[in-house]
Amino acid sequence: MVISIIGVGLLGGSFALALREKYPNLHLVGVDQSVVNQKIALAKGLVDEILPLEEALQRAELNVLATPVDSICTLLPQILDQIPAGRTVMDFGSTKETICQAADAHPKRGQFVAVHPMAGTENSGPGAAFFELLPGKNVIICDRRKSHPDSLALVEAFLRDVGMKIHYMTPAEHDLHLAYVSHLSHISSFALGLTVLVKEKDEKAIFDMASTGFSSTVRLAKSSPAMWAPIFDQNKENVSKALGDYIDLLNRFKDAIDTQDLAQSREFMAKANDIGRILGGIEKK
Amino acid sequence: MVISIIGVGLLGGSFALALREKYPNLHLVGVDQSVVNQKIALAKGLVDEILPLEEALQRAELNVLATPVDSICTLLPQILDQIPAGRTVMDFGSTKETICQAADAHPKRGQFVAVHPMAGTENSGPGAAFFELLPGKNVIICDRRKSHPDSLALVEAFLRDVGMKIHYMTPAEHDLHLAYVSHLSHISSFALGLTVLVKEKDEKAIFDMASTGFSSTVRLAKSSPAMWAPIFDQNKENVSKALGDYIDLLNRFKDAIDTQDLAQSREFMAKANDIGRILGGIEKK
Repeated sequence: MVISIIGVGLLGGSFALALREKYPNLHLVGVDQSVVNQKIALAKGLVDEILPLEEALQRAELNVLATPVDSICTLLPQILDQIPAGRTVMDFGSTKETICQAADAHPKRGQFVAVHPMAGTENSGPGAAFFELLPGKNVIICDRRKSHPDSLALVEAFLRDVGMKIHYMTPAEHDLHLAYVSHLSHISSFALGLTVLVKEKDEKAIFDMASTGFSSTVRLAKSSPAMWAPIFDQNKENVSKALGDYIDLLNRFKDAIDTQDLAQSREFMAKANDIGRILGGIEKK
Repeated sequence: MVISIIGVGLLGGSFALALREKYPNLHLVGVDQSVVNQKIALAKGLVDEILPLEEALQRAELNVLATPVDSICTLLPQILDQIPAGRTVMDFGSTKETICQAADAHPKRGQFVAVHPMAGTENSGPGAAFFELLPGKNVIICDRRKSHPDSLALVEAFLRDVGMKIHYMTPAEHDLHLAYVSHLSHISSFALGLTVLVKEKDEKAIFDMASTGFSSTVRLAKSSPAMWAPIFDQNKENVSKALGDYIDLLNRFKDAIDTQDLAQSREFMAKANDIGRILGGIEKK
């Protein structure tokens, strides 16, 4: 059986590694517009061969669309146009409403399964791909009833077999959820990194004596702008609302500090401590 | 030789573990107002015995003051009042201007060494102490010329021996630096956690399907309010300025998203990517 990975980056490449472990007889075909990515994907053994998109679509039983979300919206209708009957395309995009809308009007909508694995790192590209990224993590499937039962079953089988825990949501629920638990934390991290860099420039000092706590909080600031700009744009209503909520809380925290209202400051923190419950949920799943 | 650990929590307890490894003949005395902490510190072998503060001060050659920063300011002058000539007290507080001011007017100022290890986790108390916390990390000594050369040399010897890398700063430089690379990242994390929790409550959904990226960014939101409220208060000018800078950047990021200015959004992120340089500095040190 042939599977194509369209966009052999962190997610696509890591999925390829997880598939190879379970299915040694799979033939994996990579599609990537970057010649460097093509070479690294082959050298790393993520895929067996690189093909042009059109050719890959004729060969593959399952196509995994793992490009940035703006490319997904452009490519998805073209892929549905071209794939033979009975074949499947799934995406790995971090937004779901815009992507699902791009497929909904298509006569071959049933051949598409909308997927989002809840896993990532601040690194991107095939060089960043690693086997452990996906096994054990949550994965969300949206609008499952719009997918043909065979396409859905095929995708679910592969996701379960590589060790992922499947959850189902509407695209709207997904995008709201993700704005708060993923997109916002990327923005908070980018802005934190930039705040320190601007201050460092003004002070002409090198702020490189941070602790491991800072390192953990700002890690996502190394993430790819090309990947994240279209995610924030496609999910702009939810992201803007989440960011507004966040800025409001920061302003209230700042007021408590400025007015030396330690009781209020402690209360904010004590309430925030309950996040341990959600983090526990992540670790358990 | 006797060393007292006043406040046997994460930092004090981890320092005790690191000292034990290098100096098997040290006698470690713990002082803690919490009976539970006393029991855990003894059961975990962090210290050899628990004593009242006054008695510990008469016995110890070196006193390590590792309580929250508000207690440090109260205890430090009392400790200097009581310790015999030739003995030393060092602190582990995350602020330095207020703490150094609390000692500056004291006739025995020379017996105090102002120290801040750049290490921590979101956990607190003696149960959270672990051997690896301090070795290999940076530590800042402030106003070293105000310390007696013998007291300074003793403290430096212990810090170096447990594997820490010593840096020297003024208290003002320290507090400015820390506002940006530690205190701000704690506030950003507390506010991020709270934003998600408030939304979860409003939506009556459980937002527990976050990815590892969120987990890393929000980890510090589990930190102790009793420890952090006085830190933010003692460093309020710098923290307020840092937080103001951060909120300004977030507002500009939000504007870029709201107006769909993807070029601006990408530029923010591309600039923030340079934080990798600072993170690299942390890992190298």
